[in-house]
Amino acid sequence: MAAVNQVYIAIIGAGGVGKCFLSQLQALAARRPSPKLSLCYISTSRKALYNVDYSPVSLDGVTESLAASTQAPPPLSQVIDYLASAPAKVILVDNTSSQDVADAYPLALSRGLSIVTPNKKAFSGSYKLWQDIFTASATSGAKIYHESSVGAGLPVISTLKDLVDTGDKVTKIEGVFSGTMSFLFNSFAPTEGQGGKWSEEVKKAKALGYTEPDPRDDLNGLDVARKLTILARLAGLPVESPTSFPVQSLIPKELEACSTGDEFLEKLPAFDQQMEDTKAAAEKAGKVVRFVGSIDVATQQVKVGLEQFDRSHPIASLKGSDNIISFYTERYGSNPLIIQGAGAGGDVTAMGVTGDLIKVLSQIA
Amino acid sequence: MAAVNQVYIAIIGAGGVGKCFLSQLQALAARRPSPKLSLCYISTSRKALYNVDYSPVSLDGVTESLAASTQAPPPLSQVIDYLASAPAKVILVDNTSSQDVADAYPLALSRGLSIVTPNKKAFSGSYKLWQDIFTASATSGAKIYHESSVGAGLPVISTLKDLVDTGDKVTKIEGVFSGTMSFLFNSFAPTEGQGGKWSEEVKKAKALGYTEPDPRDDLNGLDVARKLTILARLAGLPVESPTSFPVQSLIPKELEACSTGDEFLEKLPAFDQQMEDTKAAAEKAGKVVRFVGSIDVATQQVKVGLEQFDRSHPIASLKGSDNIISFYTERYGSNPLIIQGAGAGGDVTAMGVTGDLIKVLSQIA
Repeated sequence: MAAVNQVYIAIIGAGGVGKCFLSQLQALAARRPSPKLSLCYISTSRKALYNVDYSPVSLDGVTESLAASTQAPPPLSQVIDYLASAPAKVILVDNTSSQDVADAYPLALSRGLSIVTPNKKAFSGSYKLWQDIFTASATSGAKIYHESSVGAGLPVISTLKDLVDTGDKVTKIEGVFSGTMSFLFNSFAPTEGQGGKWSEEVKKAKALGYTEPDPRDDLNGLDVARKLTILARLAGLPVESPTSFPVQSLIPKELEACSTGDEFLEKLPAFDQQMEDTKAAAEKAGKVVRFVGSIDVATQQVKVGLEQFDRSHPIASLKGSDNIISFYTERYGSNPLIIQGAGAGGDVTAMGVTGDLIKVLSQIA
Repeated sequence: MAAVNQVYIAIIGAGGVGKCFLSQLQALAARRPSPKLSLCYISTSRKALYNVDYSPVSLDGVTESLAASTQAPPPLSQVIDYLASAPAKVILVDNTSSQDVADAYPLALSRGLSIVTPNKKAFSGSYKLWQDIFTASATSGAKIYHESSVGAGLPVISTLKDLVDTGDKVTKIEGVFSGTMSFLFNSFAPTEGQGGKWSEEVKKAKALGYTEPDPRDDLNGLDVARKLTILARLAGLPVESPTSFPVQSLIPKELEACSTGDEFLEKLPAFDQQMEDTKAAAEKAGKVVRFVGSIDVATQQVKVGLEQFDRSHPIASLKGSDNIISFYTERYGSNPLIIQGAGAGGDVTAMGVTGDLIKVLSQIA
C-alpha cells in the first residue's frame, strides 16, 4: 500500500540546528505541495514522537509536542526497522553530532533509508565507516548527502564533488574551516592595526558565543581536522582518521589537564607570550598568522595549524567568523576556485541540510 | 522497446566549449558504466551526425567523423521529433550561443527532452521565453540546467537556487561577471601601482585572447547584462530583458559607428582621457574603479556599470580574469556568501555543463 507522491521525513536531534531545520522544513512543506512531506518520527536523546501506524506527526508546534512527549526514543536498530517498513520512501535527517547515530548509517542506508545530515562524525571517523556508508548507499540506491558537515551551508562539499565527478584534478585544498579560529585570528592578528592579547581574544570569543562551552574544544584543532578528513577523502585520499595527520593544538601542554574551561581561561594569560612571538615572527616577514587546514593531493599531505599569509591574501583578509575554502585544480590553474562566507550558525547549517533534502527529493520522489 | 539503463545524449554545437565538453563526456562515459551514455546526435551549424535507427554515434574520434560528415543538420523541429521518439531518455546538450536553438527549448522540454546548456540566450532573452521554458519543464517533468550561463563552471546558479529553494531571502547580488572586464580593470586600475592607458589595456586583452574578436562586444556591457538578467529572475524579479535596466557601455558614442573592431581600437586612444578621469576620481577617494553588476532585490534595481571600491574590498582585489559573485541574504547577514574564480574558458565552462548532465542523470536514469 505505497502512498503515492508522499515522502516521510524522520528527524533525530532537535537542538540548535535541529530547531532551525524544523522551521525551514515547515516552510518547505508549505511551499511545495508535491511530494507531500510528512514527519513520521522525531526524537531527541530523551524523547521521541511517532505513531506506529505511520500517521504523520504534525509539524505545527512539533517542538512543544516533542517536549510534552512521554515516549522515550527506541534503540536505533528499532527506529531503522520502523522506518524501513514505512508505506513510502523515507529520508532520515540526523541533526545530531552523535557517533552512535553515525555508526548506524550503513544499516539505515542498506535498508533503503536516504540520509541528510550535518553530522561530521559519520564522514571523519574511521575510514572503514566511510567505506561502509558509501558502499551501502551504492548497493541499495539510498542517497546520502552531508553538505553542512564542512562550512555549514556554503557549497563546499557539492563543489568538490562536482570538480571530481566531472573529471577535474584537485591538486590542493586550503582554507580557514573554523568560524571560531577565523574570529580569533582576524581579531588577534588583523591585517590593519594591532589586535588584542591572545587570552583576551579567546575570552571575548567565548563571551560572544563563538566558542564551544570549553574553548579547548575549538583550540585543539580537532574540528578542523575532521573537516579536512572529509574533504581529503572526497578528493580521493584514503585518510585513516582525523588524528592520522599533523594537527597543531593551540592548547598549551601545561593547560591540557585543566579540569574546566574556566580554569583554562584563567591560566591562559600566562602563555600569551608564545602567541605574541608567533604573531611578531609573521609581522617581521610582512605577514599575518592564520589557523588553516590544507590538503596537498599529489603528496597526500594533510595538515592543520598556524601558517603565515601576505596581508593581501584572501585568507588574511577574511572578516568576522567567516570561512574560506580555496580549491586549486588543473582546470582552474593558478587562481583557485574560492568559496567564502559564514561557516557556522544554526540557520546556515540547517540550510545545507534543507538543500540536501531537496536534492534527495528530486531523485527519489 | 525502451532500452534499460541507457541514456541518449544529443549535442548541438562543437566549438570551443563543445570540444571541451566532448572530451569530458568521453571520460565520463568511460568512468561510469551505468547508465550507459550513448551519443545519438551531434551537429554544428553546417553538419550533423546521427543514425535514423538510433544506433549510437561513436564518441571516439567524433570531431573528425563530424567534420567528414556529408549530412546537413535537419531543421530543429525535426531534430526534436527524432529525439522525442528515441527508445530511451534523452538529454539535449546545447553548446551554442544561438537564439534559434534557445527558442526551441519550450518545444524540446514539452516533448520530454531534458536540456543542459551554457547558452545565455535562453534565460536572458524575453521574459516570455523564460516563462515558457520553465512552464514546459514543470509540466513535462523534463529537466533544464544552465550552471555555465553565469560564471562558467563556478557554482553560481546552483548556489542561488539553493538559497531561494531553502527559503533564504536574497537581498542583493553584486559582482564582477565578465572575465574580460575583470582583466581590463585589474590591469588598468590595480590596487597597487599605476596601471596602463585604457586603450593599451584593451589592445593587450585582445592580443591575449581575453576579448571577443570585436572588443566592443565586451565593452558594451551586454554580456554582463545578460548574466544579471538570469540571476535577477532566479532571485524572483520579473526582469523583462537585458536592455530593460541601466547598462553603462564603455564604448565612446563617437566610436559606436566604427565598421570594424580594428578601426575601433585605432581610434580608442583619443578617448583615454575619459577613463583616466574616472580612475583619478576613484583614486582621489582612496578607491579603485571596477565594472560590476548589481541586483538590489528589495528595490528591484538592476544595474551594470562602473563603481568605486575600497582597495581592501574583495571586488577590488580580484586577480587576472577572475569573476567574483557576492550573495547578500537574510541568513548570511552583513558578510556575503562569495564565489570566486575563473568565469570563462572552454574547460571550466564545459565542466558546468558536465556537472549539470550528471545532476540530470541522477534524476532521470
